[in-house]
Amino acid sequence: MTPNEIKENAKKYVLQSWSKQKDLNPIPIEKAEGIYFYDYDGNRYTDMSSQLVNLNVGFGNEQINEAIKEQVDKYCFVGPAYAAEPRVKLAKMIIDRLPEEFGKVFFTNAGADANENAIKIARMYTGRKKVFSRYRSYHGSSFGAGNLTGEPRRYPLEPGIPGFVKFFDPYLYREGIEFESEEAASKYYIGKLREQIIYEGADNVAAIVVETITGSNGIILPPKGYLPGIRKICDEFGIMMICDEVMAGWGRTGKLFAFENYDVVPDIVTFAKGVTCGYVQLGGVAVRSKIAEYFDDHLLSCGLTYSGHPLACAAGVACVQYYEDAKILENVNTVGAALAKELDSYKETYRCVGDVRHIGLFSCIELVKDKETKEPIVPYGKDEHKTMPKIIGMLKERRFMTYSHENMIFICPPLIITKEQLLEELEKMKEVLSIVDETMLD
Amino acid sequence: MTPNEIKENAKKYVLQSWSKQKDLNPIPIEKAEGIYFYDYDGNRYTDMSSQLVNLNVGFGNEQINEAIKEQVDKYCFVGPAYAAEPRVKLAKMIIDRLPEEFGKVFFTNAGADANENAIKIARMYTGRKKVFSRYRSYHGSSFGAGNLTGEPRRYPLEPGIPGFVKFFDPYLYREGIEFESEEAASKYYIGKLREQIIYEGADNVAAIVVETITGSNGIILPPKGYLPGIRKICDEFGIMMICDEVMAGWGRTGKLFAFENYDVVPDIVTFAKGVTCGYVQLGGVAVRSKIAEYFDDHLLSCGLTYSGHPLACAAGVACVQYYEDAKILENVNTVGAALAKELDSYKETYRCVGDVRHIGLFSCIELVKDKETKEPIVPYGKDEHKTMPKIIGMLKERRFMTYSHENMIFICPPLIITKEQLLEELEKMKEVLSIVDETMLD
Ligand SMILES: Cc1ncc(COP(=O)(O)O)c(C=O)c1O
Ligand SMILES: Cc1ncc(COP(=O)(O)O)c(C=O)c1O
Repeated sequence: MTPNEIKENAKKYVLQSWSKQKDLNPIPIEKAEGIYFYDYDGNRYTDMSSQLVNLNVGFGNEQINEAIKEQVDKYCFVGPAYAAEPRVKLAKMIIDRLPEEFGKVFFTNAGADANENAIKIARMYTGRKKVFSRYRSYHGSSFGAGNLTGEPRRYPLEPGIPGFVKFFDPYLYREGIEFESEEAASKYYIGKLREQIIYEGADNVAAIVVETITGSNGIILPPKGYLPGIRKICDEFGIMMICDEVMAGWGRTGKLFAFENYDVVPDIVTFAKGVTCGYVQLGGVAVRSKIAEYFDDHLLSCGLTYSGHPLACAAGVACVQYYEDAKILENVNTVGAALAKELDSYKETYRCVGDVRHIGLFSCIELVKDKETKEPIVPYGKDEHKTMPKIIGMLKERRFMTYSHENMIFICPPLIITKEQLLEELEKMKEVLSIVDETMLD
Repeated sequence: MTPNEIKENAKKYVLQSWSKQKDLNPIPIEKAEGIYFYDYDGNRYTDMSSQLVNLNVGFGNEQINEAIKEQVDKYCFVGPAYAAEPRVKLAKMIIDRLPEEFGKVFFTNAGADANENAIKIARMYTGRKKVFSRYRSYHGSSFGAGNLTGEPRRYPLEPGIPGFVKFFDPYLYREGIEFESEEAASKYYIGKLREQIIYEGADNVAAIVVETITGSNGIILPPKGYLPGIRKICDEFGIMMICDEVMAGWGRTGKLFAFENYDVVPDIVTFAKGVTCGYVQLGGVAVRSKIAEYFDDHLLSCGLTYSGHPLACAAGVACVQYYEDAKILENVNTVGAALAKELDSYKETYRCVGDVRHIGLFSCIELVKDKETKEPIVPYGKDEHKTMPKIIGMLKERRFMTYSHENMIFICPPLIITKEQLLEELEKMKEVLSIVDETMLD
């Protein structure tokens, strides 16, 4: 197909996620390398969102590519009932990198099914049905993961699954109360959550599911003491603490797993994206040994054709190894510090920047009409004048490729980005923020 | 890892589907080729179930392997918002091979999420909520697909999603009524279904979901007129007819899609397994143009990070092409005829064979204690003496690798199997059936 045929046939034959199809005009991609990708006219684009915050090692990683090819020469697939070396190796590597309480991994294809299976496992293990999760969250778009999800992407899945309960997460920038410290905020939120759990019947609650750091709903960092507070509630009532690390895991925050930043050990961790960076699709659920042992004698009523797909696991083995060989965490911390400094300065400089939030290379800019009132640049769920697409479009004209959610712009580049590359790209962001200040505020 | 370490670490670190973990003793697999795979001691096993009825082209297909490696050299992944050639090519190839009513494809990672998205699409398109599916069915194990599923694998997902309604499929062997013809049976079943739809409120029903041919619940073939009967109900009430072709599609029955055997055109087709044979995981939802067009102006509220994964789609392009280049359908029809003849003769020969059902290379043997009473060799949901594992174990000793469901043994070899290979393997089946006759009946 010619580049134009690729584009036209994409519009003709492919249904694209989260879109009205007539709005689409997808760029045909010819090749990609590191943090850059190229169309067929040779235009170079910088990937400032790691695609969907999955491509941590960037494009064209040689180690992963080689591992895939080597596994192809052995076999791409054998069923989950057989012992396939890459599956076993990767499971061991993951458990070795988690706290010592962890015992086994159940593999899935991606993030949504990781969360689906995590809830099933928590329900089977506890014998309880209710599942708590948060409003500002995205956990996937299948019925289970989508019912965990708190934001509008769950609406088409409603009326929802009985026993799924929502609570509000700490979003200090917009809470409307001023707390004297992060600890004080955590105390308030944890107190409310504990109360809600008691009202729902603590003995009925199987799990509390949280994105360790809220990702696509705006890189909302838990205040100090918040996650340990959830841990304490879980311990008190025998509830499973499930950390969704699909987006925040695998180095994004400067630690291998995001929960390591917060002095807490969950019962169950779900992961996807960064485990293979999506070179081949893979997700999974890691569980503590006590949970794994329960299923020695009880049927694990979970399953999928491609659980522990050998080709995907081979990519995962190479990817996890690469994080270490290339000292990726060090790079995230170094470049992340530069990113933090830049973003913090934008909050001073630009009228439209209400808040910036960042950890490692996981960050976003929250745009407002007015810094004082904090009124978002577009109202929640309504962007009638397509303000945000216009802003993302201005970045795109400059080949700074990322996406937005409500009034927020994500900056989550591949973890291999250098400081120089980052600063070069951020010049474009500054240009665009200036234009927003000049032309899009009242 | 040594072969023994692979096995021991599999038990130590990997949670395996649908099992009590202490029962496991997985064989480490070193290599695989065609219909055979090998452990590290050089033992050769014959794959008589195409793994989980996905490996239609067998192991080590050169065309698919090469396509994967070529795509690796371009890029493994770009996000769903870009036009990636393999994704576009495969979508076009699929639509070109479906009836002319079909317009677009939404890609997923596997079968469960294909069904999840099919129901979402049907609900959005019709503006209705209720979804009908059948008791003897398996549609996947995530909450949505698992709530479509009628058999026990859905229990851990209950209480289920509101608005999911079950009906009984035609299972003539065990209906307990003798119909004078298949058409008469269909008339009965369709009449009951129509009545149930009216009682549920026909205007509330978004979709009727059926496996075109019931797969893992026992290769139950629809009687003549049944699927057209469902089509008629759907047309009468504006309900979407969804055919789950995850297992039955892609040549398994001797036609590319199973519904082609039954003179019917669904509104939505879900697929997975055979589209790539699982070389890389892929699934999808193909919809009629009228549905696709609806989403020109309406938000398609579906999405997953890996929708239309380029590496998976590259494998799919090669796989779908291979079906044609290697004239796979012809082989299925030729070898399938030999399989049919053999199986039909077992029903005459062996006391334990209550029924055999087959189409193409999609078949099963239903074991009974007594041909007259049709009492299953193990009661539904209870196999206290592990009779079926023993029988599968006897096949396994002979390196005839397949699996069972309740009292049924599946014979679903790769579609590349030759008649000679098939007959060689069926000798082993006959030995085992003789032993069952001699030692396991009353
Ligand atoms: C935190 C989180 N959980 C789960 C998911 C769902 O993952 P997937 O799209 O692979 O199903 C996502 C996807 O963005 C995510 O960000
Ligand atoms: C008919 C049918 N639908 C859906 C599925 C689920 O597919 P997956 O295991 O890829 O999620 C299966 C799996 O066996 C199936 O046989």
